[in-house]
Amino acid sequence: MENEETKTVPKSWAMVGGDGPRSYAKNSSYQRGLLDIANELMNESIRETLDFKIPCSDSSNICTFRIADFGCSVGPNTFFAVEKIVEAVEQKYHAQFQNSPPLEFQVFFNDVTANDFNTLFKTLPSYRKYFAAGVPGTFYGRLFPKSTLRLAYSSYSLHWLSKVPEEVADTKSPAWNKGSIQCSGTAKEVAKAYSAQFKNDMDSFLNARAQEIIGGGLMVIIVAGLPDGILMSQTGAGICNELLGSCLVDMAKLGVISEEKVDSFNLPLYYSSVKELEEIIKNNGHFCIERMNTLNHPMMKTKIDVRFAVSQFRAVFQGLLEEHFGRDDVDKIFEYFAKKFAENYDSVFRGETHQHVDHFILLKRNID
Amino acid sequence: MENEETKTVPKSWAMVGGDGPRSYAKNSSYQRGLLDIANELMNESIRETLDFKIPCSDSSNICTFRIADFGCSVGPNTFFAVEKIVEAVEQKYHAQFQNSPPLEFQVFFNDVTANDFNTLFKTLPSYRKYFAAGVPGTFYGRLFPKSTLRLAYSSYSLHWLSKVPEEVADTKSPAWNKGSIQCSGTAKEVAKAYSAQFKNDMDSFLNARAQEIIGGGLMVIIVAGLPDGILMSQTGAGICNELLGSCLVDMAKLGVISEEKVDSFNLPLYYSSVKELEEIIKNNGHFCIERMNTLNHPMMKTKIDVRFAVSQFRAVFQGLLEEHFGRDDVDKIFEYFAKKFAENYDSVFRGETHQHVDHFILLKRNID
Repeated sequence: MENEETKTVPKSWAMVGGDGPRSYAKNSSYQRGLLDIANELMNESIRETLDFKIPCSDSSNICTFRIADFGCSVGPNTFFAVEKIVEAVEQKYHAQFQNSPPLEFQVFFNDVTANDFNTLFKTLPSYRKYFAAGVPGTFYGRLFPKSTLRLAYSSYSLHWLSKVPEEVADTKSPAWNKGSIQCSGTAKEVAKAYSAQFKNDMDSFLNARAQEIIGGGLMVIIVAGLPDGILMSQTGAGICNELLGSCLVDMAKLGVISEEKVDSFNLPLYYSSVKELEEIIKNNGHFCIERMNTLNHPMMKTKIDVRFAVSQFRAVFQGLLEEHFGRDDVDKIFEYFAKKFAENYDSVFRGETHQHVDHFILLKRNID
Repeated sequence: MENEETKTVPKSWAMVGGDGPRSYAKNSSYQRGLLDIANELMNESIRETLDFKIPCSDSSNICTFRIADFGCSVGPNTFFAVEKIVEAVEQKYHAQFQNSPPLEFQVFFNDVTANDFNTLFKTLPSYRKYFAAGVPGTFYGRLFPKSTLRLAYSSYSLHWLSKVPEEVADTKSPAWNKGSIQCSGTAKEVAKAYSAQFKNDMDSFLNARAQEIIGGGLMVIIVAGLPDGILMSQTGAGICNELLGSCLVDMAKLGVISEEKVDSFNLPLYYSSVKELEEIIKNNGHFCIERMNTLNHPMMKTKIDVRFAVSQFRAVFQGLLEEHFGRDDVDKIFEYFAKKFAENYDSVFRGETHQHVDHFILLKRNID
């Protein structure tokens, strides 16, 4: 459809595959926790906002209700979320139309092409109430035919940019991010570059989905973000990222990894504020904001085990580090990280100011 | 949807994954050759039989034309076939409706859950004209919502049974297939058991597709078969299978593999006659036979290299043998097979009577 080559996200964006002890499947309890707290909101959203007056998309009397999870990674989180969505849609449908023929659900699991779809498929729940399909490709481009989805869902994926903004790795740019691996928020030019990239990516995402989602259809987005007035470097996630960055700097000084590689490494992540998100969605114009809530993850308030934290972190960032530093150095990096994490445990978990927030957003596709 | 557990095909049914020298992707030139000779028939079938008067399946003005390949394995054959189908449908559409909005294509690649979808997705053509999705699961059950497919395609997959018929591995049954690993056609009770299983499987396949394909939609089937009045043991494929069986018997006698395992090994394959197929399709009643042709593969008439033949054979049967005999014995089996194949080369390729045929079938879903 589109020129795929310009739309390809590096394979490193994929979470760790398989179902072994280091896999995302076994190390995504933060993301699962989010679903637990978002579940009631999602239920309420579907109950109050879903509109079945939209005609059936098929010429037969049977309605196919198509759902897509954008950035599903490997189960079980995606299966859990989809099951809850299907249940909520069914309840709403049966409450509205008694004695009507059953809805048939088709669920599309989307993630980057390098995602481990083999494991995803092998672990699909056997007693699911839907027909399943996998859709490979970046969600910053089109993935589905026009007006074929009724509900889109994306959890903990949209803070992943399509690429690191070029300026931050350019030694000649005022936005050069020397000494940091993330958009900490303290360097204005860096923040500007990251924010522009996020705006651009979100706009691509909304435009693609606007084509694919039927008028009146819903989109639920859960995305990592910042509380109002808080910088990334002041949040728990930001502090962990800084710690990883400082490990890389230490290791470069010790001659274990190359300094140049450390200088050119930046995380393709951007945590946004409510204001930024609202502005992007309103300017885009294809969707109406039905709800915008802040999710406060209980895990952010508890002190967690170092090993647990490091393995969760590794399941997400291993591919990224591997692609940049090479396979051999990744073990060393995470060993060093675990050590430094333990040594700095108290400052990493020094209280409430360390929280980031996650945004829950419910959008409705405008009817053109 | 259905009880998936009763519908699960063992993982051994999957062709060899990846894209290495032993993969199906690199060892499927027989199957590709079939597409080359079937291509013109397929084109003609679509030109003459496809009916665009059927309303668009979407409420928007844009039509989504959904195609599924049942038993796609890993590319490139499936991509080649799908490209040809899309081209033919587009041509027909544009000839019928000038100045109409473009069709959008959604192509579903189906195979058993153990198929290597990761490789399939990574090798998807970048400039494809369709939205791609992978659908895991056996095609002997439902895989899609009702009336959502417009064209189904299945090439070289339907001669794979959902299971080996139980009687042929039962030492107490008159259908016990002692001394052979296939339905050679010479033992009547064995042939009866295999034929019944095939009938049952084809019927399940047709019933599932009848639900999924829109009234008036097409199904193209290419399936291995027998010329009229010819037994499996008289065909090239049958002779190869017998040779493999005799290798297993030899190796059991030499004490390399267990005799009991050899006795209980049977191929879940059935090659059918035109008459059988016609009868099954007519009795099923959901589809009308628009065309039934015999494809004569040019490769059957040329003497081929032993190494080439063995590697093609291995890409298909490795999983099956591995599951039954264990990984260690598979290398030994194929080494022995290559040796015996070379020694018996002339009798294996002893001329025209050795051919099997492939059937090309075009079905149209009846409008209820």
